[in-house]
This record gives sequence, structure tokens and C-alpha cells, in this order.
Amino acid sequence: MTDPMHFNPVPLFAQLKTQLRERILDGTYAPSSRLPSEHQLCALHGVSRITVRQALGDLQKEGLIFKVPGKGTFVSRPKAFQNVSTLQGLGEAVQALGHEVINQVRSLRLIDAQGAVAERLKLKPGAAVLQVKRVRLIDRVPVSLEITYLPASLAELMGRADLASRDIFLILENDAGIALGHADLAVDAILADPELASALGAEEGSPVMRIERLTHDAEGQPLDYEHLYYRGDAFQYRLRIDRHKGPAQ
Amino acid sequence: MTDPMHFNPVPLFAQLKTQLRERILDGTYAPSSRLPSEHQLCALHGVSRITVRQALGDLQKEGLIFKVPGKGTFVSRPKAFQNVSTLQGLGEAVQALGHEVINQVRSLRLIDAQGAVAERLKLKPGAAVLQVKRVRLIDRVPVSLEITYLPASLAELMGRADLASRDIFLILENDAGIALGHADLAVDAILADPELASALGAEEGSPVMRIERLTHDAEGQPLDYEHLYYRGDAFQYRLRIDRHKGPAQ
Repeated sequence: MTDPMHFNPVPLFAQLKTQLRERILDGTYAPSSRLPSEHQLCALHGVSRITVRQALGDLQKEGLIFKVPGKGTFVSRPKAFQNVSTLQGLGEAVQALGHEVINQVRSLRLIDAQGAVAERLKLKPGAAVLQVKRVRLIDRVPVSLEITYLPASLAELMGRADLASRDIFLILENDAGIALGHADLAVDAILADPELASALGAEEGSPVMRIERLTHDAEGQPLDYEHLYYRGDAFQYRLRIDRHKGPAQ
Repeated sequence: MTDPMHFNPVPLFAQLKTQLRERILDGTYAPSSRLPSEHQLCALHGVSRITVRQALGDLQKEGLIFKVPGKGTFVSRPKAFQNVSTLQGLGEAVQALGHEVINQVRSLRLIDAQGAVAERLKLKPGAAVLQVKRVRLIDRVPVSLEITYLPASLAELMGRADLASRDIFLILENDAGIALGHADLAVDAILADPELASALGAEEGSPVMRIERLTHDAEGQPLDYEHLYYRGDAFQYRLRIDRHKGPAQ
């Protein structure tokens, strides 16, 4: 260790953890690379195997590293995130940070609106509604399943649009000429069922962040109702909230 | 069913589902009450057992009802939620909606700041920091575990404050006289580990919405760093996002 042990009141494993964390965050240990073995870490830092294991265990809990049985300990990829302080599609938000977003279109079809879909979009139960299912990949890794419900009148336009590379928000604005207003979101956590697990390339029972989002046009009419399912281990929402709204609001 | 079947293109089970959903939402079937049995629902609505099961299965997926083996089907309690469009403590936000919030104080102690805690609060690693652990109950049901880190200088004031009934935000503002500014949040989903499961009265491996929140004072200095863990089946965040920020911003 860099600091002489007997002058430092911080436990050894915590000192090692801090050093390893710094090297991960500054890129010395790069994303997806293998960490030195436990044996090598003992020698490098002059500490016991127990100390190394305790430090690695804590870093694993933080999500910075993961273990592959028989292969070693690897540095996690940084968690993708989207800043949701303003309303943007995933593509807009994440491409601006230098990531690639690709969409796998699972289905695009007219179905009968029922339950929450009919209610939120102010349609009669049984009225036709366009359903689009897409899996979205950030840097080639599946991160979300998005199920979108739109007015049936948009079916032809959506069928022609490049849903594999474009956000639906941008298609609505640029191709359909609809100005978007605000969205109401509800966020919670669920477990992946078999359909979700398969779509997201995750284990059944793994954690999923679920978003219900109803986007309105600029006149305040509901337009685009969505269920968004994000892999809990690969994605987070970030936002800034103010204690007091500015006087202009 | 109310509508003559042969004139209605909507499948029977979907019609039944819509009717049951309406009766749950309008309070005819009250929260925590038992629904009529499958047998009774068949007779009441003149439909087959298969139709009843299909409708109940869908309502269960929506979270409106739940089954207790050997006891029947019950109406879920409405999911508690907090609107996070402005920065508020859970108490402020949820009491305004007519709910009771009580806090179980698990621990209040000075610890050494390490890792993210030191970094976010701009403390030297090893500096003293006040840690407060509380379980928060809405209408007597445990909903969240909150782990809060505050400057050590606030330890005495926090030790005297009524943490069992008050939000920490309000103690900071009203007792410590600190004006709060904005908070930065990160939201994702994880699985309950044994400590979380025990605190939240949930099963190990159940879904948890995790929030990392750093609240700043009005001068923009980091003040209050928290990890908030909400039961995925009992709580959601709600927020409104605008496509375009107003001209005053």
C-alpha cells in the first residue's frame, strides 16, 4: 500500500478498495479488461488474500467489477444512463454522449386498444391502435424493450420510417410534423419475466426498471403511450430536481 | 355481460376484465377486499371459467389484484407514489396526498467517510460523517430504506430532532436554517439482498427501485448524500418532463 499502514486508521481492505476504484475510474484498469489475479494483487499491494477478497467483494457490490467463474475478475462496462430532465428519446440522449444506438424491431401491428392503452390514449375500447415493439441496443448491448402505442392513423408512416435507427419522437416531429409537448412518467422496479428476459438477454428474475410514459402533443392531447423496460444492471435514469421552482414558472 | 355478446367485437375476457377493472378503480371492489370467487364471477357475468381466469390473470399482471393460495383473489392496495417533479422529502410529498408516514430509526452514528460518500460530499477519505438509517412506512407498510450521509457538524442537531416523524429536508431547513438548492438523482433497479429484504419486509430477490440522491444547499455545495431503496411492488416515482424548456430557463 502507498501509505504506511500503522499511520493510517483506515482498514487495509478499505485502502485497497479505494486504490482499485481509482484505477478503474481513471482507466488504468479499462472496461471489460481482466484485473490482476488475487495472488498478483496480494503481491502488488503487500496484503493478505483475505484483504484482497474483502476489497474485491465490496467493489463487486458497487457494480465496478464482476467475476466469471474460472476466468477471473473483470472491470464492468460503465452503466449507460439517460438524463431525463428534458424529454428526449433514448437515441437523442445517448448518441449525444457518444454511444451508438441500434433498434431491433420485433413487431409493428394494428391491435385492439384495451384497458390502460385505450384509457390513456382516450380511445374507445376495441378501437385500432398501432403497437410497435423494439429492443434497443446501446453499443451493441440490449438495454431496453420498448412497447409503444400510437394512433392507427400513423401506421403507414411508421411502417415506412427507419425504426431501426431513429427515435419515434423524431419521426413524429420530423416526418409526421407533430409538435411534442410534455410527458407524464411513472417509474418502478419489477423482475424480468420470460419474455422480458429473452428480449433483454438477461436472466429471468433479474431486476428491471419499468417506465410508463404518456407523451402529449403541444396542445396537451395524449399521443404516444409507452411501456419501457430497462435492464437494471445496465442502465439508469438521471435527473436534476430543484427544491423551489424558478419564479418564471 | 352488459353488452350483447354477438354485437361486440371485443373478446369476452377483455370485456369482463374492463368491467372488473372499473369496479376496482371506482371502489365497488375496495382495496384489500376479496373478489367474488371464480364460480361466482361465472354466474354473475354469464361466462365460462376459462374466460374468468383469463380476465383475472390479466388484472393480476396489471397489479390490480393478487391471489392468496387457498384464500381467494384480493384487490391490491393502490401503489404509493411520489411526484418528483420538485424536490421534496417522502413525508412532505406523501402526507399531502392524505397518507401517514412514520419512520423507524435503525441507526444514527458517526462513521469514516469512504469512497462515493467522501467523494460526493467533498470530504477527505476517513473524515467523520453522520450516517442515518431509517425505514419509512406509508400507512404502516414499510416502503423504503433510506441511508443518509450528512456533515458531522449536524450530528448533535440530528440526534435531538424527531427523526421518527420528520423529513430530513425539513429538519435541515427549519432547525438547522440551511436553504436547500437542487438535487442530482440516479435511478435504477436492483434485487433485494438479505439486509434490504429484512428492512423492507420483502422477499430476498424481490425488485427494488434504487435512488442515489445528492442534495445541495442553495449555494450549490453538496450537503446530503443518500441511498434510497424502495419496494418495487409498493412504490413508484412519478414525474412530468417537458419536451422544450420554457423560454425563462
